[in-house]
Amino acid sequence: MTIELEPIGVVASPLRHVDDAPRQPDEGAPAARLLLDPSVRDGLVGLSPGDRAVVITWLDQAERDLLTVHPRGDEARPAQGVFSTRSPHRPNPIGLHDVMIVAVRGSEVHVAQLDAVEGTPILDIKPALDVVDRR
Amino acid sequence: MTIELEPIGVVASPLRHVDDAPRQPDEGAPAARLLLDPSVRDGLVGLSPGDRAVVITWLDQAERDLLTVHPRGDEARPAQGVFSTRSPHRPNPIGLHDVMIVAVRGSEVHVAQLDAVEGTPILDIKPALDVVDRR
Repeated sequence: MTIELEPIGVVASPLRHVDDAPRQPDEGAPAARLLLDPSVRDGLVGLSPGDRAVVITWLDQAERDLLTVHPRGDEARPAQGVFSTRSPHRPNPIGLHDVMIVAVRGSEVHVAQLDAVEGTPILDIKPALDVVDRR
Repeated sequence: MTIELEPIGVVASPLRHVDDAPRQPDEGAPAARLLLDPSVRDGLVGLSPGDRAVVITWLDQAERDLLTVHPRGDEARPAQGVFSTRSPHRPNPIGLHDVMIVAVRGSEVHVAQLDAVEGTPILDIKPALDVVDRR
């Protein structure tokens, strides 16, 4: 079974290379913009500055044939299965990015911090998990 | 640009129909099993009982041409953009499910509660976002 999907947009970010990206969101990711396709603009109704959201991306520079990795690339640490790590390298390299919405302008969404490089395809945007859990 | 992916497994659950699924995880989802393809078994090394994880699924019964929905299906409430809701209906119907790992047996993962129906394709498994943030 093969699933086909089309990105809803791409990331605009000063991060140019995967090696520049912080390994965890609290390690200083820069502000970024989500450039969505104008055709999905109506899907943004209700997204407001200050909201926390999960941006789901496709990590198109990741390796898809790795099942184990050394945490944080440190060979001295024992290899772990990719499903117990946040490594971008995994069979389906989907990225989850916890962000805060700063502004919504047309089909462009500005976010405070995003650990994804320029041009990363965006698959979806959802309210933050724990926000939903509190309702 | 079309992205192609292969599921890493499927959900085994007593939930048979989308209408049976709770709308939020705290509304009583049943225990379930993640039946992963034996080829990705090594990716599970390090996943342990008690760990919280995010299971990423493909909601194959969702409608992909909706951009606005009425929250919880209630027509009396104003329509919202799908990206500010957890509706399964969206251009790329990716599901995020916060779970607790109960057991890992070979390529089968048992989880305490999962709001996904029998046969839902699984795309990825990651450590819970907030667990990573605390490290």
